Amino acid sequence: MRDVAIIGIGDTKFGELWDMSFREMGIQAGLAAVYDAKLSGEEIDALYVGNMSAGKFIEQEHIGALIADYSGLARDHIPATRIEAAGASGGLAFRQGYLAVASGMHDIVVVGGAEKMTDVGDVLSTEIQATAADQQWETSFGATFPALHAMIARRHMFEYGTTREQLGAVAVKNHKHGSLNPKAQFQKEIKLDTVLKAAPVADPLGMFDCAPVSDGAAAVVLCALEKAKKYTDTPVKVLGSGQASDTLALGHRESITRFDATTVAAQRALKQAKLSALDIQLAEVHDNFTISEILAIEDLGFFPKGAGGKATADGQTVLGSKLAVNTSGGLKARGDPIGATGIAQVVELVNQLRGEAGKRQVAGAERALAHNVGGTGATAVVHVLGRVN
Amino acid sequence: MRDVAIIGIGDTKFGELWDMSFREMGIQAGLAAVYDAKLSGEEIDALYVGNMSAGKFIEQEHIGALIADYSGLARDHIPATRIEAAGASGGLAFRQGYLAVASGMHDIVVVGGAEKMTDVGDVLSTEIQATAADQQWETSFGATFPALHAMIARRHMFEYGTTREQLGAVAVKNHKHGSLNPKAQFQKEIKLDTVLKAAPVADPLGMFDCAPVSDGAAAVVLCALEKAKKYTDTPVKVLGSGQASDTLALGHRESITRFDATTVAAQRALKQAKLSALDIQLAEVHDNFTISEILAIEDLGFFPKGAGGKATADGQTVLGSKLAVNTSGGLKARGDPIGATGIAQVVELVNQLRGEAGKRQVAGAERALAHNVGGTGATAVVHVLGRVN
Repeated sequence: MRDVAIIGIGDTKFGELWDMSFREMGIQAGLAAVYDAKLSGEEIDALYVGNMSAGKFIEQEHIGALIADYSGLARDHIPATRIEAAGASGGLAFRQGYLAVASGMHDIVVVGGAEKMTDVGDVLSTEIQATAADQQWETSFGATFPALHAMIARRHMFEYGTTREQLGAVAVKNHKHGSLNPKAQFQKEIKLDTVLKAAPVADPLGMFDCAPVSDGAAAVVLCALEKAKKYTDTPVKVLGSGQASDTLALGHRESITRFDATTVAAQRALKQAKLSALDIQLAEVHDNFTISEILAIEDLGFFPKGAGGKATADGQTVLGSKLAVNTSGGLKARGDPIGATGIAQVVELVNQLRGEAGKRQVAGAERALAHNVGGTGATAVVHVLGRVN
Repeated sequence: MRDVAIIGIGDTKFGELWDMSFREMGIQAGLAAVYDAKLSGEEIDALYVGNMSAGKFIEQEHIGALIADYSGLARDHIPATRIEAAGASGGLAFRQGYLAVASGMHDIVVVGGAEKMTDVGDVLSTEIQATAADQQWETSFGATFPALHAMIARRHMFEYGTTREQLGAVAVKNHKHGSLNPKAQFQKEIKLDTVLKAAPVADPLGMFDCAPVSDGAAAVVLCALEKAKKYTDTPVKVLGSGQASDTLALGHRESITRFDATTVAAQRALKQAKLSALDIQLAEVHDNFTISEILAIEDLGFFPKGAGGKATADGQTVLGSKLAVNTSGGLKARGDPIGATGIAQVVELVNQLRGEAGKRQVAGAERALAHNVGGTGATAVVHVLGRVN
């Protein structure tokens, strides 16, 4: 297995993009990444695309070929592969692309992620998101995705004394970060009081505890590290890649206040990177709900189990602290077009590691981590990225 | 890249399996493959699953984690990845599993494919199959999947003089083969007259020119060849793997009477295998419609362009001839549970190469080819398999 670098990044703004179709978003992000890498189209060996449910959102499967086609890559008949793992579709597509280059099979691979969610109504959108959970044991009994996370939150409060205000602190921090990101869906700071008084979604989670429904796409170009210098002076190296699964249904686990798949995926990625969690300076973690970020920073090893809420409320994960979490605004404020999210995390980290993150730059960023989750933790994908000095 | 062998195979019967759920089919096929390989569950490093549209067929995405979970593999938190490429989902999942072992990342990988199609009505099923085509340029104007293939057939008849009877000969041959396969959906021979007089679906294609709607699952176990002898005396080696894409919409191509993706994928796989098409003794090709098999045997290089219909009618692809095509019965008679199909092709070829294909055994089978197509040729995946002597 050889070293792999990210040599190009691109993304659309995230939000309600009613003037762009799925394929247009994909092309915009993909071309931006290819342009950023100063590539010509003929140099691309393969395409991987992360997408959760275009079949249900826009009546279109066969997403790999679709994006290859409309990016002009079908002319060269390149291999195009779509990966699905619910919310982890993007991160998992990234991992497949990484593997394709690391193995020596391909030199240059484009990995994209996209989801077009706002062409359907909110009820159908909620139904589609619930297809990430267990149809037989959860959703057929009426459990929605927010409801499942509300149970996790309630249990975390019971076991560890996590407070409603600590949950809210996640949203306040991520909106603050989002206000510094011109590509974010929400670029306004919010107050804790706004989170606490918002309309309830699934108690204890309110409107501001939930990531929004979003449209968007993101893309990266991967290249064998030995060839990366031809394209860029600032390659970012993939130091480690880890993936893990767990039961689909929450009720089949020993505990619902930890995601073991996150812990195992992180251990695998950090071991490959020869780093510990405490070496990480910034992380994009999967905050589809406020409680999710608290679980994530515990399960990834940044804080002891049960200490995530307090750490967040104490400002230990905000931009400027030793560990900056979700500088992009996270899923909460940057937006969560499902299949795009895992790739957008990598785009943010590459911006940071290049020192090109503008107002939200983490000073001296050298080692970063991306954490992408499918369902209620049945799939987790973790990547560790680093500057090449 | 190291050599990879298939050391285990398993499948369900294909058909209208109203007594089995999606997950039950997946488990049955997966366990059969693991049992065939004499593996214990802890030896499995990763899982890949091919599936086209469980989101629309059974309201369930996140298929990789689902199958890992219900196979008992989530206990070890193994990576589980779902691949989608419409009709080529199974073949493409096989390719990703192959790559994962060839790269050295994993030693033992299970690759499964499954689709549960008969839980929805025929109209919705037709709508779902059409999501393989271009939603914007084809299906939104009313083109169904049979209609697109009818246009291909009509044009092939116009350009090359292919006859209605030659199309029918594909169905007659594949039903003959299916009659020898106890796992096939249709195990009855049919007469040419039955095909010609069947109810029309999309002229010139009638009921017997179309593969059925099916439920089913299939699975294989891949292993590094150097370690395969530990598990089996009859490993089957993956000699070559090729994948290619093309435009999603037929109307965006130079010609609709050839699938360039098939030709390119075959060239890539045969080049890796250091073989020519004429070295192949048996092939499972993607006959979702009778015209598709005629295109396939031409585009794969078995017969000159335009000669596929006559070759079939002359008996040059039937069991016992120099090249046996679709000894399993093909999609037409064995059935076509979409995501399972590409894996079922491999299962059939492994049965043949082991000399365990019973009444449909190809004498002296040593070199075989599997050809799996997504949409109307926008994705093609070709694998070349061989006996290890």
